[in-house]
Amino acid sequence: MRKCYFDHVATNPLHPEVLSAMMPYFNEQFGNPLSVYDLGVKAREAIETARGQVASLINAKQSSVIFTASGAEANNFALRGIALAKQAQGKHIIVSKVEHHSILNAARFLEKSGFVVTFLPVDKDGMVDPVQVEKSITKETILISVAHASSEIGTIEPIKEIAAIAHKNNVLMHTDAVATVGNIPVDVRELGVDLMSMAAHQFYGPKGAGALYVREGLRIVPLLYGGIQEGGRRAGTENVPAIAGMGKAAELALAEMNTRIGHVTAMRNRLVEGVLKVSNVYLTGHPEMRLPHHASFVVEFIEGEAMLLMLAFKGIYVSSGSACSSKALKSSPVLLSMNIPTALAQGSIVFSLGMGNSVEDVDYTLAEFPAIVARLREMSPFSKGWEEGSQGDKCHTGG
Amino acid sequence: MRKCYFDHVATNPLHPEVLSAMMPYFNEQFGNPLSVYDLGVKAREAIETARGQVASLINAKQSSVIFTASGAEANNFALRGIALAKQAQGKHIIVSKVEHHSILNAARFLEKSGFVVTFLPVDKDGMVDPVQVEKSITKETILISVAHASSEIGTIEPIKEIAAIAHKNNVLMHTDAVATVGNIPVDVRELGVDLMSMAAHQFYGPKGAGALYVREGLRIVPLLYGGIQEGGRRAGTENVPAIAGMGKAAELALAEMNTRIGHVTAMRNRLVEGVLKVSNVYLTGHPEMRLPHHASFVVEFIEGEAMLLMLAFKGIYVSSGSACSSKALKSSPVLLSMNIPTALAQGSIVFSLGMGNSVEDVDYTLAEFPAIVARLREMSPFSKGWEEGSQGDKCHTGG
Repeated sequence: MRKCYFDHVATNPLHPEVLSAMMPYFNEQFGNPLSVYDLGVKAREAIETARGQVASLINAKQSSVIFTASGAEANNFALRGIALAKQAQGKHIIVSKVEHHSILNAARFLEKSGFVVTFLPVDKDGMVDPVQVEKSITKETILISVAHASSEIGTIEPIKEIAAIAHKNNVLMHTDAVATVGNIPVDVRELGVDLMSMAAHQFYGPKGAGALYVREGLRIVPLLYGGIQEGGRRAGTENVPAIAGMGKAAELALAEMNTRIGHVTAMRNRLVEGVLKVSNVYLTGHPEMRLPHHASFVVEFIEGEAMLLMLAFKGIYVSSGSACSSKALKSSPVLLSMNIPTALAQGSIVFSLGMGNSVEDVDYTLAEFPAIVARLREMSPFSKGWEEGSQGDKCHTGG
Repeated sequence: MRKCYFDHVATNPLHPEVLSAMMPYFNEQFGNPLSVYDLGVKAREAIETARGQVASLINAKQSSVIFTASGAEANNFALRGIALAKQAQGKHIIVSKVEHHSILNAARFLEKSGFVVTFLPVDKDGMVDPVQVEKSITKETILISVAHASSEIGTIEPIKEIAAIAHKNNVLMHTDAVATVGNIPVDVRELGVDLMSMAAHQFYGPKGAGALYVREGLRIVPLLYGGIQEGGRRAGTENVPAIAGMGKAAELALAEMNTRIGHVTAMRNRLVEGVLKVSNVYLTGHPEMRLPHHASFVVEFIEGEAMLLMLAFKGIYVSSGSACSSKALKSSPVLLSMNIPTALAQGSIVFSLGMGNSVEDVDYTLAEFPAIVARLREMSPFSKGWEEGSQGDKCHTGG
């Protein structure tokens, strides 16, 4: 059976060249980067090479990249680290309602710690309105955090405009760019952001490696205290192989950016056109301002997880909103924030394409999809009306 | 030239079987553990298998193991997570002066956040006195954190006795067992601890994988908010290959524990005997109650880093206290807390042995060591008196 992996927002397969770049650090070059002898020096050099590669990908100074173990860690670090560093100036933070759980739940933690958080609404395409951002700023505002793009709906937010508004008001700007870095051109100077989160496994790099860009000279309170790693800003023995892999993945992403975008955009457009031929299926997110490898829909009268499993049975791997939402079996707060009715939001499906996919994968999927939808609609009680449930909200509370 | 890696407290080489156990998750089984289809299921199963392997190593329930990205993360998580969970009960925490920087600096962060921290003194062998612990407990005390063993001096602390005192006083007990888990038998029920930190790269597992044991039913506030990974207690896409590697490393450590201890103890004893034949060299840490692979010394009239580099030039890799202290070029606070004079503490040297070492390595080292010491003493101004410096204290402040 054909296998079509269309879930690159959940995670990417590792690029073979990335794995090759990692292997020496599992084998002969296993030293601790803090050790003074040659094994340590080699490990340290690997980290600095990777830091340079990641910095080049985002047009940043090398010293402004701090490695973390995940995009989620980078997001928590940004929000909590700036909140603590800037609390004397004010205790108000602005985030959007279409943020990843690691932003939303870190913001809720800050609320419990005495900060005030504004959760910005979005329009029907999931777009944040810069005018609304400006209206939300108070004298107490210290930080605005808006995702560069949502992995659930693909919408690319107007970060440059929001950052300009932030700075005009003496407020710092963070963007969660986990979904964009390595997939579309991202330039921290062009965007004008002060902080930016990234994750290697979103661009054919390894799991276990992320980074936070922190503009030069900006003070941030560490989330992980301990040794002098990462200039004393992030403690813990460095995961050298994963960091080396992130660097190589960044280098490849930069070199192949246009080729990759061309490859996935053509397939994505073909997929959207085909899927929308099925009745009562609607595109979610912005029709044009969206990630090039991303197509998200809601399918009326259907429960997303059943659709996922039926597709997987045919070798087609997709997700239903965020990975977190998938397992929590609840309607995505992102979709609800776009005024998509709860019942319809249950039928969420996200296709995210990658370099391993072919036009044949798309055509195979388009051939299988209508029958699966039809079968589920026949079987499903949801076609006769959806009863709102309360299936736990672990995803919401983070704990 | 012979290569003798005697720096297993800094990091371990990866066991070949561990790397083999990791490889599938870099290749075909690259799925996100939260995905509902088979690729996700396989990744989830890998994590749960590893959780069981780690739990077996420490005689814990599988569900009480929370994976982290490092021992430092586990230490920060334990201290901050319990401080926040228990602050209504009191805001006093007790740690020892021979803790790792990730404990000391996390404790200092809590001090700045309104907690009161007692830093317990130790005796000349680096041993914490349980009587002193009991005296330090107040009505406000919520947590005691004492390392199971210090990687700098090898001393194994009386954790069982301290935990009993903690519980008698309704106080929680955490131990940083990064230096012991996988190297000596560690049983959380026998020790009676409520929380315990571990790191895979200390027992031939990969960098990028650690764990915190949290006794069943004990509430802890997350350090990383986001999705529902690790039962909502630690967010971020799981580093599946590293976690699988940690599990395999735990399984091997448990199976080979006695063999490993026998192998390193014999070599370590031979090394200690030989090194102490050099004049004005003193063993640090407890002579018997110490890690079996660990021999630490202070060498009078010598600066540690120069000694490290001279030894490395002969293919002998050792460290000078903690990796952090090495780079920060300052006297180890652990050694100073044992009333070792500053000048003497500068000549710190730590040999930590492993399965890749042979008796020939030890004999080669014992043949080279006296000449290096003699040469350094000839060259060194320190033999004519040491001037106290103030070479930065990044290690101390973590920032």
